[in-house]
Amino acid sequence: MTAPDEHSAAGFEAPEISHRTIQLGVEESLRLDCGVELRDFPMAFETYGTLNESKSNAILVCHALSGDQYVAGDHPMIGRPGWWEVVVGPGKILDTDKYFVICSNILGGCMGTVGPKETNPETGEPWGLSFPVITIADMVHAQAMLLDALDIPDLFCVIGGSMGGMQVLEWAALYPDRVFSAVPIACSALHSAQNIAFHETGRQAITADPDWRSGDYHRQGVVPHRGLAIARMVAHVTYMSEASLHSKFGRKLQDRDSVTYGFDADFQVESYLRHQGSTFVDRFDANSYLYITRAMDYFDLAERYDGVLAQAFQETNARFCVISFTTDWLYPTAESRHIVKALNAAAASVSFAEIETDNGHDAFLLDEPEFWRVLRGFLDGADEQRGLLG
Amino acid sequence: MTAPDEHSAAGFEAPEISHRTIQLGVEESLRLDCGVELRDFPMAFETYGTLNESKSNAILVCHALSGDQYVAGDHPMIGRPGWWEVVVGPGKILDTDKYFVICSNILGGCMGTVGPKETNPETGEPWGLSFPVITIADMVHAQAMLLDALDIPDLFCVIGGSMGGMQVLEWAALYPDRVFSAVPIACSALHSAQNIAFHETGRQAITADPDWRSGDYHRQGVVPHRGLAIARMVAHVTYMSEASLHSKFGRKLQDRDSVTYGFDADFQVESYLRHQGSTFVDRFDANSYLYITRAMDYFDLAERYDGVLAQAFQETNARFCVISFTTDWLYPTAESRHIVKALNAAAASVSFAEIETDNGHDAFLLDEPEFWRVLRGFLDGADEQRGLLG
Repeated sequence: MTAPDEHSAAGFEAPEISHRTIQLGVEESLRLDCGVELRDFPMAFETYGTLNESKSNAILVCHALSGDQYVAGDHPMIGRPGWWEVVVGPGKILDTDKYFVICSNILGGCMGTVGPKETNPETGEPWGLSFPVITIADMVHAQAMLLDALDIPDLFCVIGGSMGGMQVLEWAALYPDRVFSAVPIACSALHSAQNIAFHETGRQAITADPDWRSGDYHRQGVVPHRGLAIARMVAHVTYMSEASLHSKFGRKLQDRDSVTYGFDADFQVESYLRHQGSTFVDRFDANSYLYITRAMDYFDLAERYDGVLAQAFQETNARFCVISFTTDWLYPTAESRHIVKALNAAAASVSFAEIETDNGHDAFLLDEPEFWRVLRGFLDGADEQRGLLG
Repeated sequence: MTAPDEHSAAGFEAPEISHRTIQLGVEESLRLDCGVELRDFPMAFETYGTLNESKSNAILVCHALSGDQYVAGDHPMIGRPGWWEVVVGPGKILDTDKYFVICSNILGGCMGTVGPKETNPETGEPWGLSFPVITIADMVHAQAMLLDALDIPDLFCVIGGSMGGMQVLEWAALYPDRVFSAVPIACSALHSAQNIAFHETGRQAITADPDWRSGDYHRQGVVPHRGLAIARMVAHVTYMSEASLHSKFGRKLQDRDSVTYGFDADFQVESYLRHQGSTFVDRFDANSYLYITRAMDYFDLAERYDGVLAQAFQETNARFCVISFTTDWLYPTAESRHIVKALNAAAASVSFAEIETDNGHDAFLLDEPEFWRVLRGFLDGADEQRGLLG
């Protein structure tokens, strides 16, 4: 039997990649929900396409838990295309010949934006667990500061799946005047007990790794890659569906004709999961994983509005397109319907599509013709309303 | 932030409890599916009630992954009643005034039956990973040897939930002449890719724990309790349903009025999960967890019968009652229907009930009036057919 470390590469080594960053909070700090004031911090971002003269064609893509700002093109760290390459690019649905697409690494992330891995300028040491706990609203406020810095008054569209969808909902609530259209995909207005539970198992796996060193591993020159790999494995199962696991792997064996009566990866699905765990640790920071899952767990948009979700959308004039997937059991369609109901109660403009697919939660990242058709149709309509066609 | 070890008790300490055991394989060894011959090994078991003169009232209860032989009465280790106390006892559904109920700790277990924790008589050391990998069929063969030793020719009923249900199916296939009635509950005739995937994350959590010591922790005086606790936490989420987690915990906070912006167990569901993990390690052996989950992953009853499940039931005359639960997403109703279809194809006597409940997979352990009504009705009918009433 082999322990996970033998399957993983060397771990997260903070490779020498210079991300495109901007310093935010220089003149005015970002006051976080926890009360801490964040000053003069880096935010990493990428843009695709060109901002038009009237600045009316900007689309903000919000990334999910394990995503980053590299939406399209070659990812500088993993040697593969960006995570939404199938949707973003010239002639694609988020057509970079037409739109100016922006994606920033979220607050608390590990791809250049300030987070537990970055250096706290006041101490000259990595933040580690001294980094303040952040929320989805904090992420969105930081994105708004980025838009200010880029001198972009408002967004033609804000779009994202999973945790990206949570940010989309926060955008509509916090900056109703800056959002022309909004596409929350495969998400929820509040994180469920089941989702908190799965996140907690992942966090426990990380903090149980002796190399986590109470979060101080960066300074101590180690990496809790075993714990992070296990957290990723658990999460990855939840991103798929029973149907997709069945059709992809079923009970197929890995490079053998019969079971070995041992603990090696007899089944393809075991081998696949181990691979998912070991590749993740090469590109992700374990403390960031703690902070980001915590932000998701804390997400309950209605809470600020006396528990009435519709009130979160009272001020918005945005057109919404809410999308869910039939086999997504992490953010089931019922949670999207809950959002739609609140938008209706707030008299917002909303269309809703539940996409039939076997691909589970991860469907938003995959080749899903019906999803793409809905998305293209919605954006075409919004183009027209915004006057982008002319 | 606290790592799991600070929440758990001292870990699995092989407490000095003398289980009731019998030595099996003394005259004739047990030939395991992996080819190994197991000789002169202990099997721990409990019985409740009295065997009648015609030996026609024996019920074998097969326990699940984390269960044991202590079905009813006080459990000697955990200071709580046995795991099926609600169903087994005088006047209860498995009425010990009427039936002779037997439950044995499974092969590979850690409650007195031979398993990786026990001593290999040939070496005088704990088996550890030198213990052979076992299957559900091996468990059932060992149970049949126990019946032989107790001089019980056949069973009025064999019953069990989850992995217990898998054993029930194997009993019907391997010993068709020894089973009068069979009740497989919340189970499947083959372990799905999703279930293998969840088990694999648990095994990886155990083997990633430095205290696992390649399975040799017993000899080295340590216990991989952090890894085992995480495996248990992941599994525990899968035993419940989104509905039960929502109604039990929702987003309720643990002993506080607002979130702490930290990594303590702010939410009740986190605290509950940590507790589940830390109490489990006090009563369960990590290597046993590896072996038993492996046996479940290997389970595909049709495989021995050229992939035709009906052929597994060709010889049986048993009456079946197949039971599933609406919110059990680990062993969804479709998998029980698959069993029923095969039984029908084999012209077996079968009744099937899908019980409406929010309690997920764990429903078979809980107070479920409709489930109990079905079970009682089925046993009453079987009583009559068996002539137990007179």
